[in-house]
Amino acid sequence: MADTAPSETSLDLTLDGAALTAALVDIPSVSGTEKPLADAIERALRALPHLTVDRHGNNVVARTNLGRAERVVLAGHIDTVPIADNVPSRLDEDGVLWGCGTSDMKSGVAVQLRIAATVPAPNRDLTFVFYDNEEVAAHLNGLGKIAEAHPDWLTGDFAVLLEPSYGQVEGGCQGTLRVKLRTTGERAHSARSWMGSNAIHAAAPILARLAAYEPRKPVIDGLEYHEGLNAVGIEGGVATNVIPDECVVTVNYRYAPDRSPEQAVAHVREVFADCGVAEFVIDDESGGALPGLSHPAAAAFMKAVGGSAQPKFGWTDVARFSALGVPAVNYGPGDPLYAHKRDEHVHVERIHHCEERLRDWLSE
Amino acid sequence: MADTAPSETSLDLTLDGAALTAALVDIPSVSGTEKPLADAIERALRALPHLTVDRHGNNVVARTNLGRAERVVLAGHIDTVPIADNVPSRLDEDGVLWGCGTSDMKSGVAVQLRIAATVPAPNRDLTFVFYDNEEVAAHLNGLGKIAEAHPDWLTGDFAVLLEPSYGQVEGGCQGTLRVKLRTTGERAHSARSWMGSNAIHAAAPILARLAAYEPRKPVIDGLEYHEGLNAVGIEGGVATNVIPDECVVTVNYRYAPDRSPEQAVAHVREVFADCGVAEFVIDDESGGALPGLSHPAAAAFMKAVGGSAQPKFGWTDVARFSALGVPAVNYGPGDPLYAHKRDEHVHVERIHHCEERLRDWLSE
Repeated sequence: MADTAPSETSLDLTLDGAALTAALVDIPSVSGTEKPLADAIERALRALPHLTVDRHGNNVVARTNLGRAERVVLAGHIDTVPIADNVPSRLDEDGVLWGCGTSDMKSGVAVQLRIAATVPAPNRDLTFVFYDNEEVAAHLNGLGKIAEAHPDWLTGDFAVLLEPSYGQVEGGCQGTLRVKLRTTGERAHSARSWMGSNAIHAAAPILARLAAYEPRKPVIDGLEYHEGLNAVGIEGGVATNVIPDECVVTVNYRYAPDRSPEQAVAHVREVFADCGVAEFVIDDESGGALPGLSHPAAAAFMKAVGGSAQPKFGWTDVARFSALGVPAVNYGPGDPLYAHKRDEHVHVERIHHCEERLRDWLSE
Repeated sequence: MADTAPSETSLDLTLDGAALTAALVDIPSVSGTEKPLADAIERALRALPHLTVDRHGNNVVARTNLGRAERVVLAGHIDTVPIADNVPSRLDEDGVLWGCGTSDMKSGVAVQLRIAATVPAPNRDLTFVFYDNEEVAAHLNGLGKIAEAHPDWLTGDFAVLLEPSYGQVEGGCQGTLRVKLRTTGERAHSARSWMGSNAIHAAAPILARLAAYEPRKPVIDGLEYHEGLNAVGIEGGVATNVIPDECVVTVNYRYAPDRSPEQAVAHVREVFADCGVAEFVIDDESGGALPGLSHPAAAAFMKAVGGSAQPKFGWTDVARFSALGVPAVNYGPGDPLYAHKRDEHVHVERIHHCEERLRDWLSE
């Protein structure tokens, strides 16, 4: 029963964006444990009479229904990577707020909530989407769950994801592919190693290939992307006196959106073609999204918020909106360089700046 | 209470060596869980009036006290590596007994018990040593525990370890050294991998060096040894979207007895000197033992049992007796090539052969 009962934490949407970000960080919501935060967000939104609110699992969607000519989606995930001794949040004297999720992306969620609370009659109808499990395997992603169960909740002419972009508009995003490369051997007592065959030694060409890999930096729609091919895990060994018969290297390929998921798989297969891989298993994959900045809705938004667009390196759910036919960009206050780091932080000034630009655009 | 209460399993020492081996295999005794088997051995030995029996932990020592001019130690460990779907034992129609520990070394333990039961008035005083935790870290070894607590229990003129040697006398043994090689990097989101530094990629030169390593095969006292340098474990990775900041390769060096433990460490340091190792930690070490076949007691034994001596590749407690000043050899019925393997087995004929040769030597 305790698991399904709503928790009692409440959020005060009259706080300014920075204080609200701090309040969100102080409700821990590592992927898979978002319920208390989703409950608090749902309760705060239900108190706003101009919004209708729906919920699916730990995903919350709120909408205005003003019959405007255009509908804009403001979306953000409410989960974080594991806490690294950086909760509760801490505001320093230089106006920097530190803590897990400050950048990625509770400052963006705070901006969504502030717009929801303070723009009751926007010039475009608004849909606010708060979702879970973005920092883990793609099949768990809350936005994907909503798209499956209630695709109508996500319809719109244009979407803004408040992922960390340091107040820059970011077009498109890179794709991500995770593959497990398995090498095999034959067990033997390590005192008579020549009777067996060492699967960890067999992984040497894979690591050498990774260490020597030169990533592409293609330019698409005027934006320069930056790929990466990295081992994110390695595991092998049976016992300390046994020649191991298996080693698994988990590789993550982040690729520019001029490549399809199929092309990405083909590329990784080719990179390791002559490295003695016994088994190649696709563990997780999500395609990228082309910038799409030439779309009229994207162009209007660009003009309103100013600045020039940048490429997005990290995979974001821009790609998911893209697949649903909703043009989307990233635009949020966090600094992506500090996402997932122990010293994750956000500049308070960026939170206010982002909130003001969005409010101006939606009120003009 | 249950943990210290003697278990009820009993051993019948009137069974022949093969049936007794099967009975020993069918009492599982993976390292750390030897108590039921130690209890059964102690009970069986206490029933023999010509022996005095002592116990220390799960180590059992039995002795004749006939005032003979010479004392011989017959020693064996009672633990096994983890069971791999190969218990209970199975005797096939070709006279081969299959199962965990058949070779390493419950067939040797069966021979010890048969000699203890059937040679009440040997021509040399006998000490039978049954000990635990040989298959795990050196500091847990039961023979080492006895040597620390009751060194007088191990005194003797000559020792025979019934480790698997396929009925050949094996002189000396190789040393073993286990080292953890740590590489380091800097964490970053894998979408922006150039912000960090990959510790798994940094292990590439270590694996390349291991894969290319050419082991020595030195000849000592006419016996050719065969070294080996192998990864027995590798571990790295923080999360599937994080550039890892640590990777640890566990390496096992098996070296010929012309090298001291200090020389072995120096050699391994030199092998990996230019491989970017951030930390080098010695995890476990046990020096080898020179063959010592020129010792009079060893020579007399060789003459009695026949055949020519062979080098011992695996580390055995011959080295421990050597350090106590007791010349020692390996001589047992198991086949060392099948030790620690799923298809571990022993030829019944080898068990009888070994038992008969020892009985003849001790009765002549």
